[in-house]
Amino acid sequence: MFGLIGKMRCVPGRRGDVIKAIGGGTEGMPGCLSYIVAEDPADGDAVWITEAWDSEASHKASLDLPQVKEAIAKARPLIAGFEMSVKTRPITGI
Amino acid sequence: MFGLIGKMRCVPGRRGDVIKAIGGGTEGMPGCLSYIVAEDPADGDAVWITEAWDSEASHKASLDLPQVKEAIAKARPLIAGFEMSVKTRPITGI
Repeated sequence: MFGLIGKMRCVPGRRGDVIKAIGGGTEGMPGCLSYIVAEDPADGDAVWITEAWDSEASHKASLDLPQVKEAIAKARPLIAGFEMSVKTRPITGI
Repeated sequence: MFGLIGKMRCVPGRRGDVIKAIGGGTEGMPGCLSYIVAEDPADGDAVWITEAWDSEASHKASLDLPQVKEAIAKARPLIAGFEMSVKTRPITGI
């Protein structure tokens, strides 16, 4: 399995719009086992994204899906930067 | 929803045992929507845990479940410390 844990900083006040853009769920994303978009309750402009995939290749392939491209295009201008981005190797759970 | 993202440092060489102890999955944990235990591929003694619950109360209640108490008791001596522990508010996904 392949995992990602990321913390993004949104343009101030635009967190809700970022979540709306990227929070479409796992439907139509082959190999996606879990995809959770969360607010940071202690940091009003921060968003956490945690993902689990059956393989790194499935994650990479997802970046070419039309709905993913569209989500990224919508969210990009509303994102100030990535504060953390870690690859993981999920062993148990989902 | 209520979420947790944590990074633990294991006693050197004991990561596999920590994952065996705490990686029992979500079965029998009421309100647990996702519970993933992952290795850090870049850091041989680090474990990432990401959790999503229907409420913070469900998470808190889980700490009193016999199998959770047993897992914590087994893992505790093999854990050197928590390097990160963040509460989140999952909005979409699972």
